[in-house]
Order: sequence, then structure tokens, then C-alpha cells
Amino acid sequence: MNKGFSFKRYFPILVWAPNYTNSKFFDDTIAALIVAIMLIPQALAYALLAGLPAETGLYASMVGLTVYALFGASNTLSVAPVAVISLMTATALAKLSLATPEETLAAALFLTFLSGLFLLLLGLLRLGFMANLLSQPVISAFVTASALIIGLSQMQHIFGVSANGQNFLGLLGSLFGQLGSINFVTFYIGAGSIGFIIFSKLVIKNMFLKIGVDAHIATTLSRSGPLLVALITGLLAYIFRLDQQGVQLLGEVPRGLPDFGLPGFSIDLLNSLIGSALLISIIGFVESISVAQTLAARRRERVDLNQELVGLGASNLATSFGGGFPVSGGFSRSVVNFEAGAATPAAGLFTAILIAVVALFFTPALFWLPRVSLAAIIIVAVYGLIDFSVLKKAWVYSKADFTAVLITLVLTLLIGVEVGIGSGVLASVLIHLYKTSQPHVAVIGRVTGTEHFRSVDRHTVETFENQLSIRIDESLYFANTRYLEELILNLISDKPKLEHVILMCTAVNKIDMSALETLEKINETLRELGVKLHLSEVKDPIIGKLAKTNFFKELTGNNYLSQNQAVEDLR
Amino acid sequence: MNKGFSFKRYFPILVWAPNYTNSKFFDDTIAALIVAIMLIPQALAYALLAGLPAETGLYASMVGLTVYALFGASNTLSVAPVAVISLMTATALAKLSLATPEETLAAALFLTFLSGLFLLLLGLLRLGFMANLLSQPVISAFVTASALIIGLSQMQHIFGVSANGQNFLGLLGSLFGQLGSINFVTFYIGAGSIGFIIFSKLVIKNMFLKIGVDAHIATTLSRSGPLLVALITGLLAYIFRLDQQGVQLLGEVPRGLPDFGLPGFSIDLLNSLIGSALLISIIGFVESISVAQTLAARRRERVDLNQELVGLGASNLATSFGGGFPVSGGFSRSVVNFEAGAATPAAGLFTAILIAVVALFFTPALFWLPRVSLAAIIIVAVYGLIDFSVLKKAWVYSKADFTAVLITLVLTLLIGVEVGIGSGVLASVLIHLYKTSQPHVAVIGRVTGTEHFRSVDRHTVETFENQLSIRIDESLYFANTRYLEELILNLISDKPKLEHVILMCTAVNKIDMSALETLEKINETLRELGVKLHLSEVKDPIIGKLAKTNFFKELTGNNYLSQNQAVEDLR
Repeated sequence: MNKGFSFKRYFPILVWAPNYTNSKFFDDTIAALIVAIMLIPQALAYALLAGLPAETGLYASMVGLTVYALFGASNTLSVAPVAVISLMTATALAKLSLATPEETLAAALFLTFLSGLFLLLLGLLRLGFMANLLSQPVISAFVTASALIIGLSQMQHIFGVSANGQNFLGLLGSLFGQLGSINFVTFYIGAGSIGFIIFSKLVIKNMFLKIGVDAHIATTLSRSGPLLVALITGLLAYIFRLDQQGVQLLGEVPRGLPDFGLPGFSIDLLNSLIGSALLISIIGFVESISVAQTLAARRRERVDLNQELVGLGASNLATSFGGGFPVSGGFSRSVVNFEAGAATPAAGLFTAILIAVVALFFTPALFWLPRVSLAAIIIVAVYGLIDFSVLKKAWVYSKADFTAVLITLVLTLLIGVEVGIGSGVLASVLIHLYKTSQPHVAVIGRVTGTEHFRSVDRHTVETFENQLSIRIDESLYFANTRYLEELILNLISDKPKLEHVILMCTAVNKIDMSALETLEKINETLRELGVKLHLSEVKDPIIGKLAKTNFFKELTGNNYLSQNQAVEDLR
Repeated sequence: MNKGFSFKRYFPILVWAPNYTNSKFFDDTIAALIVAIMLIPQALAYALLAGLPAETGLYASMVGLTVYALFGASNTLSVAPVAVISLMTATALAKLSLATPEETLAAALFLTFLSGLFLLLLGLLRLGFMANLLSQPVISAFVTASALIIGLSQMQHIFGVSANGQNFLGLLGSLFGQLGSINFVTFYIGAGSIGFIIFSKLVIKNMFLKIGVDAHIATTLSRSGPLLVALITGLLAYIFRLDQQGVQLLGEVPRGLPDFGLPGFSIDLLNSLIGSALLISIIGFVESISVAQTLAARRRERVDLNQELVGLGASNLATSFGGGFPVSGGFSRSVVNFEAGAATPAAGLFTAILIAVVALFFTPALFWLPRVSLAAIIIVAVYGLIDFSVLKKAWVYSKADFTAVLITLVLTLLIGVEVGIGSGVLASVLIHLYKTSQPHVAVIGRVTGTEHFRSVDRHTVETFENQLSIRIDESLYFANTRYLEELILNLISDKPKLEHVILMCTAVNKIDMSALETLEKINETLRELGVKLHLSEVKDPIIGKLAKTNFFKELTGNNYLSQNQAVEDLR
């Protein structure tokens, strides 16, 4: 990979813009339209989920999409508000217990700024590998638990009551306490909306295709369920004055484009939000890069991990200047963008323009949009994120992974998103260190008449009383080196005739400094007991590193090229 | 190893006591005498270092040694106050900003209780592997930095001034501010004491051996430097009333044995001390187990990691009931015990009895002990812990390890012991994950005319246009699985004629669930591109695990026993 500075790497637009064609323009425009239809109601809904005014969803979408089109690494990723990140934003803001909506918005902008800064720094420092700290089963569990919390948090709007809580049980308790005061008009609108969106997803496309409608148009229509729900319920609310029936409306949404400005800064805010910002950045990045890579691979394209960080970071920074909240590459929306034929990042730019048109001309109509319809849209959207199969799969495949998955799922539901994902990461790392803390090691002997060596436990092999041969099947590093030492000391304790210990290192890819010191210590201990330590079949790069130290000088035995040679030499 | 319950495992005394002999009694008594001579002044000095009354050092020693003799796993470990743990205790207590000595002592007892509880729980739950999270170079750096802080903290007593600070710079600044008010009588006693201890260590033994003194007695005399310094300077202080010259004396030390009682408990104290207790437990355990294992190996004995935790835990719990502070297996003291011929844990018991005799009958004499003499004893003791060679060695061997060592050293010196060791552990883990996040992977081809496969970059090999063979030289897990995916997607992006990807898995020892999901994703992505995914030379245990999932059912290609067979089959 190119490690030098490349201007084009940091500005992917310089690669695709010069080759832009009419046909690409047509594809991008169609994709932009379909995505906008899907995104507009989502953007409003996720803003409310984050605990912010509805218009911030529009601002975050148009700014995020525009800036990602300039810096982003993927041709099809749709960077705007997403459900899980919006929930995490709500959690981060709730911790601050701010008094006014203005303070809350200011904190949201600062959170977005920090999150953007982290992403940008990680990208510029080429630290994309940090995303690897999240194991995939842990992410699946986290997303499922978050979706459950989001779904439940929307039930208050379906019932027309008000509940609150950052975790599943809190929300459930709060909701149950309100069940006496259900507003049934609201409930019917909610149930009807959910039914209509599911129906349009499952049935409409095939219906239109059957009666000969063009595939593009049929797809567009099937994606328009949420928008149609918003239009129809808004119209109903306007005609029948449903607000007088107790149905909550979205209310005033300011007209126009966002004002740009730097987010306010305070040390207190920095201290309270830095952890949340870090989690939001990492989750947002991991989700985005997975989608981006999957989609790119389908077209044999590639996505630069670090440029993706730069793109996401720039989008979030810009969003924080443009009155929004954290944005990320949404899975279903990006898939829609991809399938609708988006050819270049310009598709995102065109989507942004369509949303700007809505913000400029159609906000008065949004006044009549029932809150419950947005809740219905969110519920259907997050339902698709719930996936318990990871639990069963982990149970069958690996109890260690199952433990990490269960910890993440349970703690996210019971305590909240930040503790949940934090514990999941910690559990993954600890479990991994635990698993590798007992490296696979076998006492080996020679299969008679051959030069092959196999475990004495599983094969009939010849061994010699004055030798002990041990094959190490793992790299040696600080977390497993002590085990090796203990094992060797145990093995030699009942072998009085032992003169030679041979470590066969075929599968040892790395020896870190802890392991080097342990080997030196083993060598020293064995020397005092009159036993020599030998190595065999050490890989070249490791020999190179060891040769820089005193190790071979101090080694009481030899470094053999082959295990068989060692055994022959020492018998 | 025996995994069932064994009464004798939890009570090692049941193993050694029935075989106790006169000769062992003689050996143990001699060793106990030599250790007691070394320990008595150290115990007083480390108590003051921890910020506690001098007698707590005697209590901690006698209780710790006695209980370890009953439960400990090592025959020669000497469990009593040690320098680094005493410093960590002082740091933990200083954070609480307590007003009175009584409150400080109560907090120290609770800290000891927590630390003992942790050790006991880790042992009973058989979680000894947790100690592996500390890499050896990081521990070396931490011990060196701690020794520097301890040494500097004692300089105030040498100069007869008072300075304070939890880290190197703080202490240094505080000390410089006081240099105007040096008490020269104190300073001469301090310098003389340091000189005498060093002289006795280096010269006396050989001198006595030369004039024909018995080796045991010569050793005892050479170890008695600190005790002699205490005796001589105490006598000088008494005769010349040095307190009237401004020399600080130890003062009243209560006579008698400790009162036993449960340490006081409060939630506030728990919250403030739990982190420190955890760090103290881990550092104490890691230090103890290293010494215990090294010494045991020299006699071809073994030490059970988890029983060692139980022994240390019980000692600390008992110490917290008996008015002491955290204890651990000291390195130099245990070596002395070993070299003096301690045959069983009874040696520790006898040392405890000797210390009890001092506490019962000789405390009035302690009144006249100059504080500066104890400082001199500490300074000589910790000087032996300072070892900068780890920096040079790490620099030569591995820049990654060097980074972790430097972080630990610098942060311990500049900020303090807790931040220092915490950052060291974190740095080790992150660096390890980073190093394994790019597994060694090679595109391979067949060495013509053989069945051997080698990297295409380093050897002249034959490859086929419709195949891509990749050898993976590392276990696959969450931190490196994404890299593999990216690599494969990159490699296939410019090979339009590709039909088969073969992953050669000779060196893959584990595939965790993240890696499994990545392999499934790669398989799916390749399927969409019309490319089949094959595996070759997968190890049996991994095949067994994969067979429990749908992986082989979904795999578009085959699982080949040998790489050559795969290549032949697919050309």
C-alpha cells in the first residue's frame, strides 16, 4: 500500500469528479431521490430520538451528506443520522441533566464536534486498526440491545403517553405506570402506520412489478411507505384537527438552512462528554466501515480504512458547525443507495439538495405531522436490527464469545448503551488474553522410522530419557509466557535423568520482550539444574531479532534448524 | 493438573508438617534468625514509608509470616512488608486526605482487607492467569521508578528536613525548597549509615570467611549491617541525646502484640480504595509468584499459582485483622531465606516468633532509633531494585515493548505509582492487540517440481491465473480478522480471471467467532463475484469447531487436507 503522501487520497473527489458522465448523473439522481424519500422522515424521527429539535435531523443530514461526498472513501455510503448513534447521543446528553433545550443543543453540537475530531485524528494518524477492538459478535449484541431500547422508547408515542429511562427496565417500568392514560386515537394512528409501512415493504413492490411498472419506480414506491405515512397522517391531523383529540404533533419547525458557527466550549463539558464522544466515534466508524466494505466488495472496489475515518470525521465536524448531531453510515439506507444505483458520492450530494429543498419550502407542512407516525417509522426501522441468532450461534461455536455477547446484551439492556458496549469491549479483550494465556503446547516424540514429530499423548512415538521435546503452537508474548515457564518447570521436576530441553518453534510467529526474558529465565534455571536448553525450527525473522540480544550467547544449548537434527545430535 | 478438590492443596502445611525433622528444624531456625535480623529494621522503616506508625510494620510481619506459613505454596517466600507495596499503600492513603493518624490506620487496615479479599477470591476462583496481564518489562520499569521515588522520599530524612509529594518531581521540588535548613548532625549519621551498610554487604562476609569463621555465621554477620546501624545509631542517640541536636527519633513504640479486630467498613472508603487495593494485590502477587517460582525451580520444586494467591490472600486478610498493612513476598528477603537454608514454611513462623519477642521486650529501646538510620536502610534496600538496563534492552529488541516500558517509567515518576502501572498495563495490551492486528499473511505459490509452497515475493514459484493462494501465519481473532478481509478484497480487486481463493491454514491455531463471521462474509462476498473460497491444511480442533456451525455447508469451495491437493484439483 502507498505510504507516501497523496493529495488524491485525502480528496477522493479529485478522482471521481473529472470522470463524471451524464449516465452517472442519471443514476445518482435516481438514487438520491429514493434515499431522500426514505431519509426525510427518518431524519426528523432520529433527531427526536436524540432528544433534539426535529430540524437538527434535517441539518445533520444535509451537512453530513455534503461533506462526506467531498472526503468520504465509499461511493455508496449514506452518512446521516442513524438509530443507534442517536440513542447514544440521547444517553450522553441525559447524563448532563441540562435545564434548557438551548443548553442541550449546545452540548449536542460539542459532542458532535468531539466525535468528529476523534474520527479525523484517528484517520490522519492512520489508527483505523483501533476499530478492531470491537469483536463482531459484541457489536451484533450491542445493536440488538440498542434496537430493543429504541423500540421500547418509542412505545410511549404509540400509546400517546410519556415515559423515560436510559435502559430497558427503566423504560418498561415508566411505560407500565402510564398505561392507564393511553390515548386511543394516537394508538390507532400508530398501529395503522406500522401496518402500512410493513405492508408497503412486503407487498407494494411486487404488486407494481406485476402490473408492469418500471422496476426503478416500483422500488421507489415500495420505499416510500414511511413518507406516505407521514403525508397521510399529517393530512388527517390537519383536516380533523387531531391535536384537539390529544394527538401530539411535531409542531413548529423553523424554515430555512442551518446557521453555521463554532460549537461552544467548556472544560466541564469536555470532561463529561469525552468518553461518550469516543464511544460514539468508534461505534459509528465500525458500523460505517462494515457497510462500506461490504458494498464496495460487491463491485470489486475497495475502501481505504483511514480515509473512511477522515470522511466520517470531516462530516461530523461540519455537522457540529451546522447545527446537527452525530452522523454515521446507516446500513439499510446505504444498501438502498447502492441498490438504487448510486454511482459516485454525488448521489449523497443530490440527496442533501433534496433535503435542503424540504427545509426551505416544506417545513410549515411538518407542523401537522403526528409524533406517533415518526415513532412508527422508527419502530419498523429498528425492528430490522434485532437479531438474537448471534446468541445461539455463539453458544454453539464458542462459550467464550457467548460470554462476551451475553455481557454486552444484558448490560446494555439493564444499565445502558455506554456501560454495555464498554463492558463488551473489555470482556472481548480479557477473554482473548485468557484464551491465549495457555498456549497450545505438546510434549512430542519421533514417529519411529520417520523424521516426523507428534504429541506423545496421541501417538506412539519414541522419546529419549535424557531429552524433553516440547512443541509450542503459538506466538509467545506477555500473557502466555508465564504459563510456558510453569509448564517446563513442572515437566522437569520429576525427570532426574534429563539433560536437554528442546523447544520446537515451528508455529511461533512472534516472541515479545516478556517472552524473551522468560526464555532467558528458563535457560538460567535449567543451567543451575545442569540441563541445557535448545531451540529448533525457529523462524528467520525471530532469529534475526534474537540475534540482536545476548540470547544466543547465553543459551546453554544450540539453535537447531530441524527438530530431528536436534534429537539425533543430543541422544 | 489435578482439578478436583484436594484438602491438602488448600492446606500445604498438611503436606510438610508430618515429615518435619530435627535437621529441618535446625535449618529453619538458622534461616529465621538471619531473616529476622534483616526484617526488623525493614519492617519499621516500611511502616513509616507507608505513612503508618512503626509498630504496624512489626505486626504486619509477624501476622503475615505466620499465616503464610499455614497456607502459602512456597517453602521459602518471606511474606512481610515490602518497599514497593508500602509506597503504593502510602499513595492510596494520601489520596483520601484523612485528618488523623487513627483514620489513616483504619483506612490502611481496610485497604489490606480488600487486597487480601481480592487475592483470596482470585485464588479460589483459580484466576491466577490474571497476573499475566503484566508484561515483565513493564513490571521492571515500574519497580525501578518506584524505587527512585522511594529513595528520593527518604532523602528528607537524610537531610533532616521534611518534604512531601507522590511523584518524583513533586518530591524533588519539595526537597529543594528545604535544602537551606539541612540538619548536619542528621546528615552525617545518614551518610555514615549508608556507608556502613554498603561496606558490611560488600566486605564483611569475605573478611570473616578469610579468618576462618563458619560460613553460616559469616553470612549472618554480613546481613546484620542494617541491624548494627540501628543498634549503633540508637546507642549514639541515647548517649549524646541527639534529639537535642535536632535529630528526629522514632519515639514511643507501643509494647506488646497486636490487638485483633475486624477493620471498619464504609461505602465511601470502599469506593475510594477498591482501585488501589486491586493494583496492590496484582503487583504484590506478580512479585511474589516470580520470586517463589524462581526459588522453587532451583530445588526442582513447584509452586501452585492459585494456592499462592490463597496464601497471600489469607496473609493479608489476617494482617488487616492484626493491625498491619499490605504484605507480599519480598525479593531480596526471600532470596536470603532461601540461601540461609530455609527448608519449610516453618522458617517464616520462627521469624515471626523472633519479631514477636522484639515487640514484647525491646520496644523501649526503639525509642532512641534515629529516623535517619531507617531512611538509610531503605535507601540501600531500594537501590538494588533500580535497573535501567530494561530500557536499553527493550530499545534494541522491540520498539513496541520499549514504548510500554517508557510510558510506565515516565508516568510512574511524573504522576505516581497508580497511574504509572495502570498505563503500563493498558499500553501492553493495546500494543499487543496492535501487533497482532496485522497478522502475517503471504500470497504463496508452488516451488516448481515440489509440493512446497512459498511466498511469491521471496521465491520463484508457479501460480495459476484462476487461483489465489494465501497462507495465514497467525490465529484469527477479532483484532486481526478485519485486516484479513480487507487484504483479500484488495487482492481480488485487480484479478478478473480469478475463480478460486485458497486459504492455507497451517499456522492457524484458533478461529474465534468474529473470525468465523468474517470468513462467512468473505465467502458470501466472493460468491457474489463468482469466486469460490477454499481452505487447506486446517487443524483438526478447528475443523471440529467449524463443523458445529453451518460454515462448511455455506462454503462455496472445499476444505482440502493439503495445499498441493487444492492447487492440483482447481487448476
